[in-house]
Amino acid sequence: MSVIVKRLLRALGSVLPQNGPKALHEPEFAGNEWAYTKECIDSGWVSSAGKFVDEFEARLARYTGARCAVAVVNGTAALEIAIRLAGARSGEEVIVPALTFVATANAVVHCGALPHFVDSDRATLGLDAQALQAHLGRVAECSGGAWRNRFNGRRLAAIVPMHALGHPADMAAILEVAARYALPVVEDAAESLGSSLGGRHTGTFGLAGTLSFNGNKVVTTGGGGAILSNDEALARHARHLTTTAKQAHPWRFIHDEVGYNYRLPNINAALGCAQMERLPDMLARKRRLAHAYRAQFADAPGIHFIDEPVGSVSNFWLNAVRLDIEDIEERDQIIGALVAGGYHCRPLWTLMHRLPMFRECSRAPLTVAERLEVSVIKLPSSAKLVQN
Amino acid sequence: MSVIVKRLLRALGSVLPQNGPKALHEPEFAGNEWAYTKECIDSGWVSSAGKFVDEFEARLARYTGARCAVAVVNGTAALEIAIRLAGARSGEEVIVPALTFVATANAVVHCGALPHFVDSDRATLGLDAQALQAHLGRVAECSGGAWRNRFNGRRLAAIVPMHALGHPADMAAILEVAARYALPVVEDAAESLGSSLGGRHTGTFGLAGTLSFNGNKVVTTGGGGAILSNDEALARHARHLTTTAKQAHPWRFIHDEVGYNYRLPNINAALGCAQMERLPDMLARKRRLAHAYRAQFADAPGIHFIDEPVGSVSNFWLNAVRLDIEDIEERDQIIGALVAGGYHCRPLWTLMHRLPMFRECSRAPLTVAERLEVSVIKLPSSAKLVQN
Repeated sequence: MSVIVKRLLRALGSVLPQNGPKALHEPEFAGNEWAYTKECIDSGWVSSAGKFVDEFEARLARYTGARCAVAVVNGTAALEIAIRLAGARSGEEVIVPALTFVATANAVVHCGALPHFVDSDRATLGLDAQALQAHLGRVAECSGGAWRNRFNGRRLAAIVPMHALGHPADMAAILEVAARYALPVVEDAAESLGSSLGGRHTGTFGLAGTLSFNGNKVVTTGGGGAILSNDEALARHARHLTTTAKQAHPWRFIHDEVGYNYRLPNINAALGCAQMERLPDMLARKRRLAHAYRAQFADAPGIHFIDEPVGSVSNFWLNAVRLDIEDIEERDQIIGALVAGGYHCRPLWTLMHRLPMFRECSRAPLTVAERLEVSVIKLPSSAKLVQN
Repeated sequence: MSVIVKRLLRALGSVLPQNGPKALHEPEFAGNEWAYTKECIDSGWVSSAGKFVDEFEARLARYTGARCAVAVVNGTAALEIAIRLAGARSGEEVIVPALTFVATANAVVHCGALPHFVDSDRATLGLDAQALQAHLGRVAECSGGAWRNRFNGRRLAAIVPMHALGHPADMAAILEVAARYALPVVEDAAESLGSSLGGRHTGTFGLAGTLSFNGNKVVTTGGGGAILSNDEALARHARHLTTTAKQAHPWRFIHDEVGYNYRLPNINAALGCAQMERLPDMLARKRRLAHAYRAQFADAPGIHFIDEPVGSVSNFWLNAVRLDIEDIEERDQIIGALVAGGYHCRPLWTLMHRLPMFRECSRAPLTVAERLEVSVIKLPSSAKLVQN
């Protein structure tokens, strides 16, 4: 057993409870989840209309500070609609980090556009504004009133940073670069409910932001997502598009554009309302878990705890360490040993440009992302691993 | 008040209970809905994995006789995936009835294809096989190994009949025409859970079929849908595509094609399992309601009850009457009077080719669909309107 595995096992054993599963991230239902779900079933309103959907949207808006929140079936759907409303059209390119969950790139393709991959920042794990600026300086040219990829003529439609593992990307710098190229920014905040920068919640910096409430997230609705925006017209359009683009009428079926069946069902929203009430407590416990990990790895040679970036508050959705290792086989041996020890540790995602369907997509040099891919390991991070 | 309105009000007053709302279709939760939902929440498995999703799929397959059932977030998603797996690609045309809910045509567009509208049968309200045959005789030509629309060169990719209001379309005749043009058939059975033809459940005749469990359907999961198929490879592919196309691996994230986040959450499937247990009883009561309507309208001049087609069993999802009227203003006056009387009656859908986004799509003569659009009125049809 390697020295690094021994150190990791010792730290995990010290931080986590001795008994019970050590999943990467499990939901916790300790509040009004039953009560609201039962109320929802008793009311008969379990589907696309009902008070819990409206209430869940109101709670999300209040919590994040976004002017509007539109609840939808999942984070991928939220991102697809937000990217579409940012103006991305068939055959255009949307800039996304190569280091992300596949949904970010899939959502771009679902709009008919193509992802264009850029590098990530070693500290935040998010899109690297410096690298983005350098890359756009090489590939972007303004022609016909639009910024285009000079190598294939495709219009650059938007930039989609993603707040990886819950840590905020450097939005100030990203927005500055985006402004230079007149590109709208849609934040993929699927992992970062509860994370903020300078007191402002992730997902509220760009034209729109999107959340996910999948079962592995801080807050879950079974499956669910939301679009955040301070632009009321955009949010109204998002709500219209996600409810089959049906015009209001007492009985006529008039749909005025190609729409989607993406509205979050009321029963899932009922779960979400209860989860939002528990969010501050869950975040506090996740923060204590992160502090415990940080302390364990403070002077562990070869192991670097991935901390919240300076100036930001992270939800510490998934705690992770960066190891001084060089290749994917070594990473997988370490993960295998940790899993064998009962700890559900995981790598980051396979970089998007390595996946067969995205191999031909445009991309910047991805040096940092490639190093992060082989060296980062995610650690068990459920709030339920820390008791009050 | 017109004679026809008086007759309709008298019939509705006679068939329906005096008290309580007379919605078009409301869900009924009288079984294990709460028990299973609670069990699901207690287990912690509310999201994309869990025993209720597997169980719900098994129950759907058993009930419909389909070899495979794949549960997804809604009927539109089910149809999009099924049409895609039938081979429809960007720029191709998919034949759908003009008389359908907008989701049928939207799902085609979500695949990148274009709907091509055909006429409906006055008796079944479903796609008219004779009219389809005549239309394909005029517009289809075989070139380059594929049947194409001779007027624009687009490949004809599939035929999507829809079992309107729950009444089975004439699948034998439709399959015969489809075979002549080598076109795969995907059945939109969103409205017809419980409906069969010659003992065979709707949605199991073509390459694949799709169900919806929206709140207004016979059985609801809040939001939900399913793909039915007897083709195990197709069902396997559908399951793969709807779960982000992720390959099985203990921890690596390898996705081998552009996938979707379309898996039905476990909590919605829990509701669905309970609803499936109640389905036979709900169908029996809906049938009694249909019999009562039929008797009321048996000798009402100018009012024709839309009955289950010969050789089929309908779930009578929505009871409806065809009136001897000629224009949409008259229809709307009648509906207005019925709604004012407390009965949530509704028209059929606006024909697809009238909606702005589909106005330029290819279409056959739509004479029957146009007459049905102005003359059919849907009546309150919830199972809960009939007590045991």
